[in-house]
Parts: sequence; C-alpha cells; structure tokens
Amino acid sequence: MAIDALHRTLGVHRVLEPPGVLPQAATRLDPDPRIGPDEVRIAVSRLNLDAASFRQLSEAHGGDGDAVRAAVLGIVESRGKMHNPVTGSGGMLVGVVEEVGPRSPLGLVPGDPVATLVSLTLTPLRITDGLARWDGRGEQVPTSGTAILFARSIAAVLPDDVPQQVALAVLDVCGAPAATERVVHRAGHRPSVAVLGAAGKSGCLSLAAARDARAGRLVGVVRDATEATALRAAGLADDVVVADATDPLAVAAAVGEPVDVTVVCVDVPGAEHGAVLATAEGGTVVFFSMATSFSAAALGAEGMAADVTMLVGNGYTPGHAALALDLYRRTPGVRALIDPRVAR
Amino acid sequence: MAIDALHRTLGVHRVLEPPGVLPQAATRLDPDPRIGPDEVRIAVSRLNLDAASFRQLSEAHGGDGDAVRAAVLGIVESRGKMHNPVTGSGGMLVGVVEEVGPRSPLGLVPGDPVATLVSLTLTPLRITDGLARWDGRGEQVPTSGTAILFARSIAAVLPDDVPQQVALAVLDVCGAPAATERVVHRAGHRPSVAVLGAAGKSGCLSLAAARDARAGRLVGVVRDATEATALRAAGLADDVVVADATDPLAVAAAVGEPVDVTVVCVDVPGAEHGAVLATAEGGTVVFFSMATSFSAAALGAEGMAADVTMLVGNGYTPGHAALALDLYRRTPGVRALIDPRVAR
Repeated sequence: MAIDALHRTLGVHRVLEPPGVLPQAATRLDPDPRIGPDEVRIAVSRLNLDAASFRQLSEAHGGDGDAVRAAVLGIVESRGKMHNPVTGSGGMLVGVVEEVGPRSPLGLVPGDPVATLVSLTLTPLRITDGLARWDGRGEQVPTSGTAILFARSIAAVLPDDVPQQVALAVLDVCGAPAATERVVHRAGHRPSVAVLGAAGKSGCLSLAAARDARAGRLVGVVRDATEATALRAAGLADDVVVADATDPLAVAAAVGEPVDVTVVCVDVPGAEHGAVLATAEGGTVVFFSMATSFSAAALGAEGMAADVTMLVGNGYTPGHAALALDLYRRTPGVRALIDPRVAR
Repeated sequence: MAIDALHRTLGVHRVLEPPGVLPQAATRLDPDPRIGPDEVRIAVSRLNLDAASFRQLSEAHGGDGDAVRAAVLGIVESRGKMHNPVTGSGGMLVGVVEEVGPRSPLGLVPGDPVATLVSLTLTPLRITDGLARWDGRGEQVPTSGTAILFARSIAAVLPDDVPQQVALAVLDVCGAPAATERVVHRAGHRPSVAVLGAAGKSGCLSLAAARDARAGRLVGVVRDATEATALRAAGLADDVVVADATDPLAVAAAVGEPVDVTVVCVDVPGAEHGAVLATAEGGTVVFFSMATSFSAAALGAEGMAADVTMLVGNGYTPGHAALALDLYRRTPGVRALIDPRVAR
C-alpha cells in the first residue's frame, strides 16, 4: 500500500499537531464535520468515558460534577478528541450514521445506530451542546455533536434486542472477553483462571468467556463483601475471594494455589504485582486496565523471578463485539452484574 | 507457603515506606548491610544504569555530569535503592559476594564475582564513596557500597572468559534475547522478525537469538546511517533499514512487508505504534523498552484495528543469563557491536 493511502486509512490527514503523527499520538485533531470520500460522519448521542479516565477526572476535581463537565469540555475543545492527557485514555461513543463517503469500506448506511469500537483518543470529535445534559457524575455522557470514522476504524451496528446503554457498556469492554477466550484456549487443558476486578463489566464478561473457553478452576477476586455477594449470586466463578488488588501479597494469599491465567480488569494503578504473584510459573497475565504501568509489570516479574508471559490487552480482536453481546444475552449472571451498573 | 515466608522471600521485611508493599513498589528500602539468615550481602563495585533512566537524568540536567552524579546519589540516599522516580526504572550491579546467610537458596559463596539480574528498583543499596570515581556521563558507574539479595533474587556468577564490563552489559539485557528466542520458537515455521533498535545491546542480541531460533527474514531497524553501516558489517540481519522508531509511518514504510514478530529494543518513548504497524495480522510485538507506554500500545493497536499479540518484555526467563553470554561468545557480529559500547 502506498504510504499516502496508509495515511488516509489511519486518519493521519486529520492530525493538526504535530503534523504527520497518527491520530492517537496527536495533541490536536481536526473535527471538521465535512467528510472525505472514505470517511463516515456520526451524529453523536452519548460518550462512554474510560473508567480510569473518569475516575482520574472525578478525583482531580473532588467529585464536583460541574468541574468534571468543564474539564471534559475543555479537553474536547482543545484537542478535537476526548483524550485524557493524564491517563492517556478515552472511551467510546454511540450515535447514528449521518453521512457515508462513497469509498468508505465500513459497510455502514445512514441511519444505522452504531457504537465506535476505536478509542475516543483517536476519534475526531466536536461537541455542540456544551454537555448540558450531563451532571459530570458518571461515565456515560449524553450529548450532541459529530464524530468522524476513518477507513480503518471499527464501529458496531447496535443490536435492537439490547438497550442502547447496556450495549454501549458491553461494547466498551468487548476486547477483554475476546482476548480472554483466546488466551484460555491457548493455555492448554482446562487452565485455572483468576480475574481481578471480577464483578465489574470487563471482569464478569471475562469470567463468562473463560468458562466458555473450557477453563478449569475459576477464581473471581473482588474488593469487598458487597461485590463478593453479587458475584457469588451471579454464579460465574468457582471461588469468590476478597482482596485489595493493589496489595500483591493479599492477592496472592486470597487466590491461594497460583493459577495458569490471570486477567486484570481493575481500573486502579498498582495491580501488576498481585497479578504476577497470583500466576503459576509458565502462566499468563493479561492486563486490561488502562491504569497498568508497563515498567511496574516488567520489573515486578523480573524482581520476583517470575517466569510468566504478560500481555498488553489489545482492545481489538476480530469478532469481539459479537462475542461480548452474545455472552451478555445468554449469561444471566453477566446480565445481573451489568444491568444495575447501567440503569441509573 | 505461609504468607510470612513469602514476605521474607521477596524482601518485604526490608521495606520502610509504605509498609507491607513489595520492594519495587516501595518509596524507601532499608539498605542495612547486616543480613538475615536467607539474605546475601554483595560488596558493590559497579552499577549499570538502565538506558532510559540514564537518558532521562542526563537530559534533565543538560548533560552536566556533576549534576547527574548528584541526582543519582540523592535517589539512592533517599530511597535506599537506585529507582529513578521519573522513568520507574533502575538497572543492575556487579560486585563480589561478601556474606551468605545460612538459609540462602541462591548457591552463592563468599568471593564469587556476581551480577544481580534483578532490577536496582528493588535492591537495597548503600553507596559509601559518594560516586567519586564516576563522571556522570555514562551508564556504567564505578562505585563502592553494599547491596542485599533476597531468597528469590537472581544473581549470575560472572564468567572468567568475558571482561567484567562486557558481561555486565550483556547480562543487563539478557531477558530480551531469551524472550525473543521463545517467541520466535512459538511463532511457527520460520517467522519473519523485525528488531527496532537493532544496533543496540538488546537489539543485536535479539537478532542473534531470532536467527538461532530459526527465524525467516530478519529486519534490523536502526536510527541512522552510522548504525546501519555497523549493523550491516555485523551480518546479523538480512535487511538493515533506517527509520525514526517514533515515527510509525516511517517504520512501516521502512520494514515493508509486515513481519510476524517485532521486537522493540529502542530506549525512547513513542515506538509503540510503529511496532504495531510493522507487524502482520496475527503477529506478535514484544516490548523491551522501559520507555513503553502501556496505554499507547493498547489503544494504538485498537485504534488501528490491528490483531496483534503484545507482550510486556519480562526481564526474567529461565536460563537467560547463560543464553545471552553464549550468544555473545559465539557471534562475532554481536561482539563487534557490543565491545565498542563498553570499552571507553
């Protein structure tokens, strides 16, 4: 592929600063709603902020919703995208396809209700309602505006049998169960699996995916008794244990016999060493938290002389959207954990 | 294992702040030279600072050697370990075994010349000469002092057929070739491999390890014509190409046909996207640079809809020290690239 064509495919032509970098690395994108021949314009109806990003913004502003709203608005206006400069993360959005360029390969049609499955950190975004309908107190942000998809972006047409907010919440984390399924499949015969943050969205879907992939013993690690009760009722794990994921020795003690695969779905920093300590020699850790520190993971494993394979959770695995929605539909325990997080 | 025993094995009893965390997560360790029954005391003769750490310190102080020396001394005095608070990385050290506790499992004997293969970020360290013999202008730091090894630390006895400074430089990066060998072995029949930062220590050893593991096409990516000439002369790669590793589109263009395995050995931030773009669908990227950003890697792959497996380079793989020294001994091209970096 010629380099110019690769550039357009990836959206490099939308980068304002610094020129010639990829959209995610850019400090500022051009969110002009007029589309090129291979682009798609979405009429945005809702943003779903990345959990680590929302948590950081909320903590930085002492939980003051108005201040959080102003901060998000400021980021989008200055950067042309919702890219939290502190956490480096974004989230995703839903909306309706408004216009499709004649050479777009995405197969979308005007009027399709869609969720973008590429990060907000690289999606040109314009907000036109000042976020007036959002109280700044939750990750889901009702809004109006426009977003641009490139030729190599990914968007899922929203199903008509799942409420939109639920579908959004599921699709936001659909990379985790898809990657978990793949890792468990490759880990041999009935590998034991522990999930940190098991009562959350990505955690419960990852547990269900691991079960589907014929995992052996399934351990759900949660942070308190309330979550433990909910996860036990959901029936997704063989063992449910309570531990502070940022306390490595507590995690190791709670999990007990080290497992073959550990999936990290907590959205707080400092879970790297517990995950490594909970994993058996020769096992695999998959990090899905955007709060993961690369150096803490690499040096932690080395420092503990732990022969574990550590994966950077890739948000994209082919078929991830369909897999996650399917797990949601046919797993009552997943629905029981996710629905209350959405219906507010 | 009882939790108290696990604590001692990992060195938790040496943590001063905050109490109860693992040594790498600690802000301050106790470098008291008196050892416990399962500990080992090393008489330190030399530190080898992590490349990313030294680069950051040097840049922060405008290349002023005296200021860099004062900064390193300040870090060690305040933290009880050489743990760069900005990069999160450390390095390793060499010395001579001075005292071995009666219950140490490491098999060391007083008088053994050793290199520690666990990071300085978790090794209790005391410097007693004020770094008076170091000019602050290179990663290798001659010094005097003491360091402590725990039961689960790793130290390699230095070979007598390789100069000490060379062995130190090789052992510092020995995780990279060992992990590269493993990944290439698992990647199927004669996978093509690209190494970013191929003329550096970990880069050239990784190329040699990939060749040993029966890789197919081997591409060495370097930053300038000088490195290209040196790498071509070393004969370690089939193709040697020049590209700025932080320019993803330049890396993709230089590598050409995407490869099955990409190994990232550059010590500057921003190489994540180029590595992903250079890698074929279904391929693997191994990140060895401590300058790697977890979120840039995860979101970059997602944003480019790239189905690649991304590994956090684990500094520990069983047998890594012997493998790296062996590659150095029997690969003239590796010696030709590493020797000039050490003999200064």
